[in-house]
Amino acid sequence: MRNIKIIGYGNYLPKNIVMFDGEKRYRCNGSETQLDMAVKAAKKALKNAKLDIKDIDCIVSSSAVIMQPIPCNAALIHEQIAKGTNIPAMDINTTCTSFVTALDTMSYLIEAGRYKNVLIVASDVSSEGLNEEQKESYTLFSDGASAVVITKSEDSNQGIVGSLIRTYSEGAHATEIRGGGTLRTAMKYKPEDKADYTFDMKGKPILSLCVKKLPELFKEFEEKFNVSIKDVDVVIPHQASRALPFIMQILKIDESKYVNRVSEFGNMVSVSIPYMLCDLLEKGKIKKGDKVLLCGTAAGLTCNILLLNI
Amino acid sequence: MRNIKIIGYGNYLPKNIVMFDGEKRYRCNGSETQLDMAVKAAKKALKNAKLDIKDIDCIVSSSAVIMQPIPCNAALIHEQIAKGTNIPAMDINTTCTSFVTALDTMSYLIEAGRYKNVLIVASDVSSEGLNEEQKESYTLFSDGASAVVITKSEDSNQGIVGSLIRTYSEGAHATEIRGGGTLRTAMKYKPEDKADYTFDMKGKPILSLCVKKLPELFKEFEEKFNVSIKDVDVVIPHQASRALPFIMQILKIDESKYVNRVSEFGNMVSVSIPYMLCDLLEKGKIKKGDKVLLCGTAAGLTCNILLLNI
Repeated sequence: MRNIKIIGYGNYLPKNIVMFDGEKRYRCNGSETQLDMAVKAAKKALKNAKLDIKDIDCIVSSSAVIMQPIPCNAALIHEQIAKGTNIPAMDINTTCTSFVTALDTMSYLIEAGRYKNVLIVASDVSSEGLNEEQKESYTLFSDGASAVVITKSEDSNQGIVGSLIRTYSEGAHATEIRGGGTLRTAMKYKPEDKADYTFDMKGKPILSLCVKKLPELFKEFEEKFNVSIKDVDVVIPHQASRALPFIMQILKIDESKYVNRVSEFGNMVSVSIPYMLCDLLEKGKIKKGDKVLLCGTAAGLTCNILLLNI
Repeated sequence: MRNIKIIGYGNYLPKNIVMFDGEKRYRCNGSETQLDMAVKAAKKALKNAKLDIKDIDCIVSSSAVIMQPIPCNAALIHEQIAKGTNIPAMDINTTCTSFVTALDTMSYLIEAGRYKNVLIVASDVSSEGLNEEQKESYTLFSDGASAVVITKSEDSNQGIVGSLIRTYSEGAHATEIRGGGTLRTAMKYKPEDKADYTFDMKGKPILSLCVKKLPELFKEFEEKFNVSIKDVDVVIPHQASRALPFIMQILKIDESKYVNRVSEFGNMVSVSIPYMLCDLLEKGKIKKGDKVLLCGTAAGLTCNILLLNI
């Protein structure tokens, strides 16, 4: 058990809404950026925590994609909310589960006393990288941001009970954006190569890899940390796709127990998990003492599970 | 003190050499990729550690730039060296000092028993993003890769004595690549905007920020960890530029004590620090018991200091 607690949180959605088959999606539409959203969520989280930026000991960006190739996202967020301070800024990335990986990783540094208050910010603007030719993914994503402030807890029952990260790179190309990094630079972009510079999702191979790997991973998690998923109060899975109920059924997680708001928000990339977590906290639907399981699959294919006693 | 040790290391340089004013620079020249180099360095480090990939508990990419926007670099490295395993793969990024941040961060997870053996891989191919119009930066960089395997040490004197990360975002735009992320996507690229999609370095503002901030940071480090830089055996600074001796002089670090191989290798981005560290280990120039200070400035502006008892 790593004794941490969430002392502030903030969500942000762009104002512009588009509808696909009766489902809502939030899209920046060029009027706001990934950075704007990150800053808004971060400021909300600080206000909610009743903290000044000077009380923060580390700023971690846990977004899936980059705002600029150089410097890292956290430095750009720092410039907007922490300029003039010397607070460390770093990025942690496992694509869609980056927030869970950041929470998981930074909990060790809080536990060891390196940092007291850590601000974790996830922000993604998938609408900048979708391919209208691929209807399945084009209609799936929303933009948004979410931020939390975590700190050490003095309550020995509060914090991270256990966590696992697993990468199955058989799925490395099942969800990807091939162009825009050094393997195919921005400067090589030609309009006819648009499919290589936008999100490409191969739904069936991912789903089949998840079906193959997730049950054994959940079993490993239960055994390793001597917990039963049945005793968890709320499961917050990454809102990956409309296949979420199918995956939850395979994992034998009851419908009453998991958050499924894909029809309202779609897949918000790295933001889905913290957004749903913060929303439940804000509405008082989860409270101190509750056992909350954060889990999800990310491009990689990387799977995260983390059990948090709120 | 976080008790870790390096049990394997490997460096890789592309074969192609270019010369600028009598100084050597290594450039992939399109024949090798950032991923190819990462894989070669990682395999060398595993061989040097006499470990199989299955002995690794986490793969961390600590490169400055991305290979693809999705998935993260570590997942792509995983696919080449760990496919079929479920080893977690994650990226940690503070641009040029990413390796130091990754070593620093992962040492907590090793100390806490989360992972036994961690493979950290830095690989950068700056030559894909240079602007020939900006001679100062165009002639400065080399491509390359470096990897280490770290594990827990049972020797209470071996490991990380102390470390600090500080970000001064007054320098957020002093070294940057503006285009290629979501703020200016690859798909907006036009040849006339090349300067926005390539590395832009404002030498003088960075140098003046370093001169202002580094002395107080080194002082804070000495006081916080009750050490004197004078007692350090070797200082391995990021090989940022030809101004390295000037910065070292300001920090009162004697010429005999720090590594300056800018004329041989230039600035290798995130690879400079681990490359010099591994090279000294390979040549037996640093050995068990030596106190090695890793330090550097990165785009952000982020500064890292980490004192490692080898």
